[in-house]
Amino acid sequence: MIDLITSTANHHVKYLRSLLRSRKDRHSERRFVVEGVRLVGDALNFAQPSLLLYVPEQLASTERGQQLLDQITQLPNAFATTPAILAGLSDVETPQGIIAVVPMPQFISQSASLILMLDGVQDPGNVGTLLRSAEAAGVGQVLCLQGTADVWSPKVVRSGMGVHFRLPIVDGLQWEAALPMIEHCQQRFAAVQDSTLAYDQADLTQPTVLIIGNEANGVSATTLSYASTLTIPMLGSLESLNAAVAGSVLLFEAARQRRKIIKDEG
Amino acid sequence: MIDLITSTANHHVKYLRSLLRSRKDRHSERRFVVEGVRLVGDALNFAQPSLLLYVPEQLASTERGQQLLDQITQLPNAFATTPAILAGLSDVETPQGIIAVVPMPQFISQSASLILMLDGVQDPGNVGTLLRSAEAAGVGQVLCLQGTADVWSPKVVRSGMGVHFRLPIVDGLQWEAALPMIEHCQQRFAAVQDSTLAYDQADLTQPTVLIIGNEANGVSATTLSYASTLTIPMLGSLESLNAAVAGSVLLFEAARQRRKIIKDEG
Repeated sequence: MIDLITSTANHHVKYLRSLLRSRKDRHSERRFVVEGVRLVGDALNFAQPSLLLYVPEQLASTERGQQLLDQITQLPNAFATTPAILAGLSDVETPQGIIAVVPMPQFISQSASLILMLDGVQDPGNVGTLLRSAEAAGVGQVLCLQGTADVWSPKVVRSGMGVHFRLPIVDGLQWEAALPMIEHCQQRFAAVQDSTLAYDQADLTQPTVLIIGNEANGVSATTLSYASTLTIPMLGSLESLNAAVAGSVLLFEAARQRRKIIKDEG
Repeated sequence: MIDLITSTANHHVKYLRSLLRSRKDRHSERRFVVEGVRLVGDALNFAQPSLLLYVPEQLASTERGQQLLDQITQLPNAFATTPAILAGLSDVETPQGIIAVVPMPQFISQSASLILMLDGVQDPGNVGTLLRSAEAAGVGQVLCLQGTADVWSPKVVRSGMGVHFRLPIVDGLQWEAALPMIEHCQQRFAAVQDSTLAYDQADLTQPTVLIIGNEANGVSATTLSYASTLTIPMLGSLESLNAAVAGSVLLFEAARQRRKIIKDEG
């Protein structure tokens, strides 16, 4: 017979809730929350969850869930709970029956030749989408300046689809702290609406930092003092592209140029 | 003294609500709803709203709103209402004080050399983002196959930022009906996870149809019988990109190749 956590006053439930709700708590604990069969599976591969809450019958209803269940039931820090408790913690409409607390990965790349820097991107969906595009385009380091949505928030983690475990991410940075991390990159390009440089005219095969700004206000004045600019030429009457789209178009142009070099040399 | 609409039982309010909620009503009426100072301003330039509801004091609180107020107060189909009525109709947290019913534009391009086809894209934000990217990349025609989220829904219209008034869009299509609209395009490429053709190896300067499928399931089997495939090469462990990102990367590659041709020839 498994002991069930049935009360929202349980200290594990309270702890999870604090990490889900509070950026401050996540960062003071250096832990974040992942949810769902897939992400918790990733978490078990890449990190060491410090707490797992699960609903046995929900997990057992799918093959992948059952595999996960077999993997975790013997763990000392895994606790069974009720669907109601889990639904109260869940960020999604149909919870899959598992949620976990995971330490934030702490890796920094010292030599990434393509770095994505986020300067005030606010929408969690945009941040998650940019992280996915970054991994797929070969980014080796993501740097988030202060004012960017928290990369460890439940929404960004969900939309990142596991990229948090694989991509070196440093957040909460001021420019002064970021500088030593990018000094090996001769090129720093901030994406703006108006620039004399079209993005496809830049040589993005060199070590490069690409900087994406806030959805409404673009990059900061400070950023413009540390970086040059480039732009995506646009037809029609729109003032701007979606921030995640703009960043992704730049990232995949860098990937395209880099594939081309390898091909031309090979 | 202006007569205020103060009741949710008012027939104008009911009509707006039906168009906001029901795809069927939007399509049988061939009308959709736009909200906010900016979009209603666009609507007045490009179309002829058949109904306007506005909150005078909210509009008057901004310069652009006041200009719009001056423009509409004399219109026979513009009615003042209360903040509560408008908030009940609004799709956003802080309504700007104006909402309008507009006829769906009915233009079709017979000769667009870049066509975006949506095959079951479900998320309204993705559809809106793709429409914006389409305009900016020089798409001349958007075709939506049955099973795609309604392009005239409030969320898609909001995230489209006015593109609905400028870009020829035909929706609710079956392949048989779409074929005559694309017969001048020799190339039809569906974006898929696995294809022997990398997107940047395709010659996208030719008349081309780019097809983006459903977020979870990709393009349909029927689409694969009518189109060849291409893919965006990805590094890392992700299975897929965000649908709006994938479509935008393809669209801007087409735009890049087309600019390059003009430049090389010029």
